[in-house]
Amino acid sequence: MFKPNIQVCFSPHSYPLFQEENQVVVVVDVLRATSAICAGIANGVNSIMPVETIEEAKSYSQKGFVVAGERNGEVLEGFELGNSPFSFMEDKLKGKNIALTTTNGTKAIKSAYQAESIIIGAFVNLNSVTEYLLSLKKNVLVLCAGWKDKFNLEDTLFAGAVAKELLNSLMFVTSCDSTRAAILLYDRAKDDLENFLKESSHRERLGKLNLQKDIEFCLSVNKLNVLPILDKNGFIVKETQQNNVLL
Amino acid sequence: MFKPNIQVCFSPHSYPLFQEENQVVVVVDVLRATSAICAGIANGVNSIMPVETIEEAKSYSQKGFVVAGERNGEVLEGFELGNSPFSFMEDKLKGKNIALTTTNGTKAIKSAYQAESIIIGAFVNLNSVTEYLLSLKKNVLVLCAGWKDKFNLEDTLFAGAVAKELLNSLMFVTSCDSTRAAILLYDRAKDDLENFLKESSHRERLGKLNLQKDIEFCLSVNKLNVLPILDKNGFIVKETQQNNVLL
Repeated sequence: MFKPNIQVCFSPHSYPLFQEENQVVVVVDVLRATSAICAGIANGVNSIMPVETIEEAKSYSQKGFVVAGERNGEVLEGFELGNSPFSFMEDKLKGKNIALTTTNGTKAIKSAYQAESIIIGAFVNLNSVTEYLLSLKKNVLVLCAGWKDKFNLEDTLFAGAVAKELLNSLMFVTSCDSTRAAILLYDRAKDDLENFLKESSHRERLGKLNLQKDIEFCLSVNKLNVLPILDKNGFIVKETQQNNVLL
Repeated sequence: MFKPNIQVCFSPHSYPLFQEENQVVVVVDVLRATSAICAGIANGVNSIMPVETIEEAKSYSQKGFVVAGERNGEVLEGFELGNSPFSFMEDKLKGKNIALTTTNGTKAIKSAYQAESIIIGAFVNLNSVTEYLLSLKKNVLVLCAGWKDKFNLEDTLFAGAVAKELLNSLMFVTSCDSTRAAILLYDRAKDDLENFLKESSHRERLGKLNLQKDIEFCLSVNKLNVLPILDKNGFIVKETQQNNVLL
């Protein structure tokens, strides 16, 4: 019997090495882009367009989009939002369209734009991600946004959590050392994610920016029952049967 | 007080992201290239020239070199040696010069050729590596050969062993998540490397080729008291004060 495989890619830089046809890509940037996207879509934001450059984001402003942007953890000057999940949960954003550019997360999403299907994952919607993947039964790649193309711990832990769940179902297989490493690290961390990540590099970076509340939110497992997915026009929207046009 | 840093790079593909001036690069390909190089240099091989292509290796044959080569774990046709450490320990190789090309290891060495200093590490010479690095007090990058530019477990474990030793000395610092991950994985594996690696992808690959004896050798910690280093002409030789010209 065919069993789909699960792989983990530690950085957008390495994505071409893992790219396959008919692959579902789960993009993760736990601190904070994909957590914020989940928060926004759960809040009723209509769509989020991931863009790579600040200029591109600004150009969406003229099209009526709310413009959100962050670099190195800080809100961009002149932008309405950064990538704090709390700012994506404000009532005034319901029904709105957002253009979002971040240091790592939106870059990771764009790097996988040719994939057959892209979904957005974070600890806040872990169960929604794994349930969806278990129902699809297609090859899966978890693509970690990392930090400026380097490995980071928090995205790897999420990848380990997804991989563990899929392999435990016995419906998936892996032959990939990075998947094994991610599971081992997740097993070590899972009982206290926040404490485990205390010394991680991005945790330190955000700590300095006084973002403790954001970090706690981003490390809350299964807080949201939502699955953001890219539609055929490259907008991130709430997954429904209709959006799932490419599968 | 200045403390040098230790970083870990999981793949030659990512080396440009970690490259710095005045950096000592430790190249590791546990299964089996750098273990075989250590075995050869400890055995009294005069020098080993790492080359990338099969054609280049063959051209050294005309210059009186013994030609060694491997692809996907198997000895290349027409080559005198592959990269089994045992073949590098034969008496007839004492005083000889070898040209070596392998799937991952020699590629990793070549990718770092511009580094200020390159040394060759493996579990078999772990202590020699860490003692040398502790005496130098320069920034260190452990460059894992991986498997075809992807992460692998065995090289990461070695990187974790080196990083742990340097950080425990309190003479080094790190701010690098991949270093932290490598140490966590090494801590999990160190009491029984062979058992831990039983399910790793390259271990499986070599197991199929009936290379159990090689694997046992490559996972023997501190079996050899030798430090192979690149000299100014790009040959791997035994480290002596005289070879250490670039530092």
